[in-house]
Amino acid sequence: MKIGILGTGDVGQTIGAKLVDIGHQVMLGSRSKVHEGASDWARQVGEGASVGTFEDAARFGELMFCCVGGAHALAVIDAAGADNLADKILIDVSNPLDFSHGFPPVLAITGTDSLGERIQAALPRTRVVKTLNTVANSVMVNPGMFGEPTALFVSANDASAKAEVIKHLNDWFGWNGVIDLGDITSARGTEAWLLLWTRLYGALGTGDFNIRLVKKSEAKPET
Amino acid sequence: MKIGILGTGDVGQTIGAKLVDIGHQVMLGSRSKVHEGASDWARQVGEGASVGTFEDAARFGELMFCCVGGAHALAVIDAAGADNLADKILIDVSNPLDFSHGFPPVLAITGTDSLGERIQAALPRTRVVKTLNTVANSVMVNPGMFGEPTALFVSANDASAKAEVIKHLNDWFGWNGVIDLGDITSARGTEAWLLLWTRLYGALGTGDFNIRLVKKSEAKPET
Repeated sequence: MKIGILGTGDVGQTIGAKLVDIGHQVMLGSRSKVHEGASDWARQVGEGASVGTFEDAARFGELMFCCVGGAHALAVIDAAGADNLADKILIDVSNPLDFSHGFPPVLAITGTDSLGERIQAALPRTRVVKTLNTVANSVMVNPGMFGEPTALFVSANDASAKAEVIKHLNDWFGWNGVIDLGDITSARGTEAWLLLWTRLYGALGTGDFNIRLVKKSEAKPET
Repeated sequence: MKIGILGTGDVGQTIGAKLVDIGHQVMLGSRSKVHEGASDWARQVGEGASVGTFEDAARFGELMFCCVGGAHALAVIDAAGADNLADKILIDVSNPLDFSHGFPPVLAITGTDSLGERIQAALPRTRVVKTLNTVANSVMVNPGMFGEPTALFVSANDASAKAEVIKHLNDWFGWNGVIDLGDITSARGTEAWLLLWTRLYGALGTGDFNIRLVKKSEAKPET
């Protein structure tokens, strides 16, 4: 499949490299046509990897990822072009983190709104699916590192897009038991999780962690 | 131990009943001296259980719990009296949830602030320890329902208070491996978790769940 990725940072490079590795063609999009980091990435990843502008990537991809920093996401979506993203699935991995107060960050969007919702509102002809934003990029493409299933969530208005993305997450990266949180408003929950995630990152000293949901009904009898 | 609980709702009643059950004396504090729900609770729980005003409970307790709804917490603290709470540990279980938009709620306090921080700021002579606020009250007093250890967090400025509360959480309720998230500012993380918790409550149809942290280093080798 031809996959376009908006963003050339660690998240975009990690997801892109994995997708090329399993046989897809991937274009990383950046602000400018010439982007040293993205070009280095494409050379290193080899055949199947290419680079371009946000607009180029949006035209290229049959399916899209949004992997830019949350502060830039809406401007990047605008640069990519709503027409180029129409009738496609956009997997939104971004989080509205505001680092202006230092680390840990605060949320730039709260209350009855989320970045996922703003992106969906900006792209009414695109099926936005929020997922993967709750884990480090190392975990996104390799949940097998834990040796046991851990939790991942999807939020989207379109049920068929959600089902398709859940299948991709399994086929591409090995995610099992992905939890359907509901419509795109449930992105408020996963984006807010980053405030605890960043504290855990500090306490644990690594981003190579995730959570597993434990329900009473699944448990052994009480002792 | 004499324990005062601010709040007569499900959380206060559940924690109070458990503490009486294991031999402590507990007073539930409410706005008014006469509170039907609290009085029913005290009758049902029996010897060791009593009720009073917020001020009565704050005078009574050698150790305190704040179990009121987040919207009322600061007013309740004020009614309880900073002098009555001085030189004591206050375990803050409250969350700043705003239900004015319906369910799921939004956070009433965000950014570089949290309810835990506001309570600590209002009570400079009290050692505030934020914990238990990330799980349903059924889970708070019975983490054994899962048959395996799950995650709980503590946030506090005072290291000795944190250590004491971690010991109580184990002795009283059976919590193991409680995670020290840092100072009281880390309450921003656990309070924000409620936005994901409420979505999971909706998706799972029960509050009897929790998370377990899974780290790469603890895991089996990658396959």
